[in-house]
Amino acid sequence: MDKPDNLHPRATSANHEQIPRSETISLREKHVGKSCKLFFKADPLKIVRAQGQYMYNEMGEELLDCINNVCHVGHCHPHVVKSGQDQMAILNTNNRFLHDNLVLYAERLIKTFPERLSVAFFVNSGSEANDLALRMARAHTKSREVITLEHAYHGHVISLMEISPYKFKNQSQDDACPDQTHIAPVPDVYRGKYRDQDYPGQDLGEVYAEDVKEICEKLAEQGKKPGCFIAESLQSCGGQIIYPNSYLRHVYNHVRAAGGLCIADEVQVGFGRVGTNWWAFQTYGNDVIPDIVTIGKPMGNGHPVAAVVTTEEVAASFAGTGIEYFNTYGGNPVSCSIASAVMDVIEDEKLMEHAEEVGRYLKRGLERLMLKHEIVGDVRGVGMFLGLDLVKDRTTREPFTAAAQHVLTRFREERILLQSDGPYNNVLKFKSPLVFNKSNADRLVNTLDEVLEEIRLMSNFID
Amino acid sequence: MDKPDNLHPRATSANHEQIPRSETISLREKHVGKSCKLFFKADPLKIVRAQGQYMYNEMGEELLDCINNVCHVGHCHPHVVKSGQDQMAILNTNNRFLHDNLVLYAERLIKTFPERLSVAFFVNSGSEANDLALRMARAHTKSREVITLEHAYHGHVISLMEISPYKFKNQSQDDACPDQTHIAPVPDVYRGKYRDQDYPGQDLGEVYAEDVKEICEKLAEQGKKPGCFIAESLQSCGGQIIYPNSYLRHVYNHVRAAGGLCIADEVQVGFGRVGTNWWAFQTYGNDVIPDIVTIGKPMGNGHPVAAVVTTEEVAASFAGTGIEYFNTYGGNPVSCSIASAVMDVIEDEKLMEHAEEVGRYLKRGLERLMLKHEIVGDVRGVGMFLGLDLVKDRTTREPFTAAAQHVLTRFREERILLQSDGPYNNVLKFKSPLVFNKSNADRLVNTLDEVLEEIRLMSNFID
Repeated sequence: MDKPDNLHPRATSANHEQIPRSETISLREKHVGKSCKLFFKADPLKIVRAQGQYMYNEMGEELLDCINNVCHVGHCHPHVVKSGQDQMAILNTNNRFLHDNLVLYAERLIKTFPERLSVAFFVNSGSEANDLALRMARAHTKSREVITLEHAYHGHVISLMEISPYKFKNQSQDDACPDQTHIAPVPDVYRGKYRDQDYPGQDLGEVYAEDVKEICEKLAEQGKKPGCFIAESLQSCGGQIIYPNSYLRHVYNHVRAAGGLCIADEVQVGFGRVGTNWWAFQTYGNDVIPDIVTIGKPMGNGHPVAAVVTTEEVAASFAGTGIEYFNTYGGNPVSCSIASAVMDVIEDEKLMEHAEEVGRYLKRGLERLMLKHEIVGDVRGVGMFLGLDLVKDRTTREPFTAAAQHVLTRFREERILLQSDGPYNNVLKFKSPLVFNKSNADRLVNTLDEVLEEIRLMSNFID
Repeated sequence: MDKPDNLHPRATSANHEQIPRSETISLREKHVGKSCKLFFKADPLKIVRAQGQYMYNEMGEELLDCINNVCHVGHCHPHVVKSGQDQMAILNTNNRFLHDNLVLYAERLIKTFPERLSVAFFVNSGSEANDLALRMARAHTKSREVITLEHAYHGHVISLMEISPYKFKNQSQDDACPDQTHIAPVPDVYRGKYRDQDYPGQDLGEVYAEDVKEICEKLAEQGKKPGCFIAESLQSCGGQIIYPNSYLRHVYNHVRAAGGLCIADEVQVGFGRVGTNWWAFQTYGNDVIPDIVTIGKPMGNGHPVAAVVTTEEVAASFAGTGIEYFNTYGGNPVSCSIASAVMDVIEDEKLMEHAEEVGRYLKRGLERLMLKHEIVGDVRGVGMFLGLDLVKDRTTREPFTAAAQHVLTRFREERILLQSDGPYNNVLKFKSPLVFNKSNADRLVNTLDEVLEEIRLMSNFID
């Protein structure tokens, strides 16, 4: 077992490319499921290395990365890499054995949450975390009724596809919304059911929360109750939606009054992306505290690790079922070492403060574009989670999907990676690694300024 | 971002212990869900490092590992470790970008399967793989009816708990077997519904398969059909069950005739553990070919990586739903690099031949104990997947659970880690890393000989 490693040679060229791009594409077509889509399908990107906020293709071109929120503290951060490398060589086993990495990380993680959220379960992905959260809510409330938001996406496993309108709205009847899933309107004050322009001076958080209350009341009429309300603390797939400040407070009150639990999905938006707080739900006030929080993507900076954090009471109900929860890789020493290193970097490099400062700087830059370009209908966001809503008409707010797609294509030519999202795919979605800096922000704003000007001059663009 | 790593110091003593054992235990009790159980609850093991087939506790004691099938090619195998370490430092991103590691590993993996199984989907765990397999079967057959085996365990997410009688047999009514789950008897010729002693000379594979046929017929009477039949190719949690040779062939024929797909769960038993073949289903004949195969645990030697392998037709049906399948970490360059290194080691170190040879040697040793100790009711298995069924009476085959538990406790004192399983928890379950050698086998057999002799002399033990 101690043979030298030259037993296993691996051919990799200096640019980390092993086969020509055309062969990569043909092998992918042959052996990888077509349901797994590529970015820029017509001319996909082959990325061979990455560092900080930059990715590099096989030609050595440097791309500014505004999409990989997963590589939270920067691609291949040396401290995170070293922590993983060191632990891999020592031990990687399951959590049926005691290990210090697991318990020390659990303790450290729990410290970032309000006091009542004190118990953690470690898993491998946001999907596993959200599925486990649903299992816990069922065990605690004995109800399988789930209230979810319009356009929500909570993961790829069966139980989560059933509560992810983002996915099943386009699905065949066979897989449509099950009876136990109840969809509340997304509290989007710009494009949602209740809009700021129609309710001047009103607290739309309260208005939107009434719809959740109604769902609870309808369930009660049928002798049922909600098992849980689940929502991202900021809605990502819905088009970078920031809720009215009072929304979650009112909703949590309604759901709890009806006997349900409140789950905050922080898989996309957690770990300090909002700048001011570790967790996005905390931006709505210290009294807004979920019963279960799920975390993932940024947690391991790309390494598969995720978790569920909950109260002693909910954890006790789950243990009370008598069923062991065993997750083969969940909480293994390597995953915990990496996750802890990510927290080291967030703290030592003051990335939350950085996210707040650079996020504010970038947002101001985008808001300046709004003064200049009619097409920019809305600029919204918090910290390094920003959205820019492109419209054909500022009054009707008609989404301008083609323009958003044109921006992404032109940005790629300018070597900036950006995504769009939302029900109309017209929202430019910014969620870069947190190490994105002010000079990167200037480049993004200036490039966007130019591209929006191009669009304005293309008289035939509006259709 | 290029600051030296001494910015982030980490206190680890030479023995890799960071806090005293008592503190590890108290932090775990405080912050980790009680549903996550420890081995040897009364006096759990703290493992600080591992190498090959050995684990080491905080006192430096060396334990022979007969349970960690996940660390397939040996704990911390240097080539696997180096592959992970190297790739982590270069790039770790998602599969919406082209990457050579993904397609080269897919091609290499697919070569180990019969020709029609040519498309792969990469995920993070066996649970994600089995859940995805169910989604595919639903998409392809438009049926959600699932035939599963008694005592089966397929994973911890909701959809799989519903087809895992190993778990829900002990569950409250609320979470009991759903209508769409149909349980067939496990084809266990030693302790199952049809036993070799009662059907001398008969092909029990055919007999057991008839029960699956009956389920298909009952579904047909209700105007339904099976979406899929899912089974491990060797049943692990059921007590190391090896099926009669013709069983899967007959079952697959029945299920396909009824319009269903056949899923082989190779998460526990794949990657050459059986010695003669890469996949355990292949031990039943070249004509026994599933429609979907799920793989996991040993795939990454402890790193979270798993996959679904299927036919072009099934993959096309799944793509035909129009729903993108995106798995954040699935098929990332680090996971693929590690998985490919595991295959390097299996091939270069001829671990399949080794598993066959040492597995046969160990099995012969255990069979010799059977001649000497009445308590050994059955020795079964293939390659490095073995089970020893302890009984109070060889004729009635009454399970001797207390004896199995005593063996585990004594083995731990003798620094050998072994597990028990099966519906009566009386089956000693051997599934060590494949690098387990003949001298380890001698030690296991000799120690077991001594402990079984102790049990024989404890006249008060039988109760």
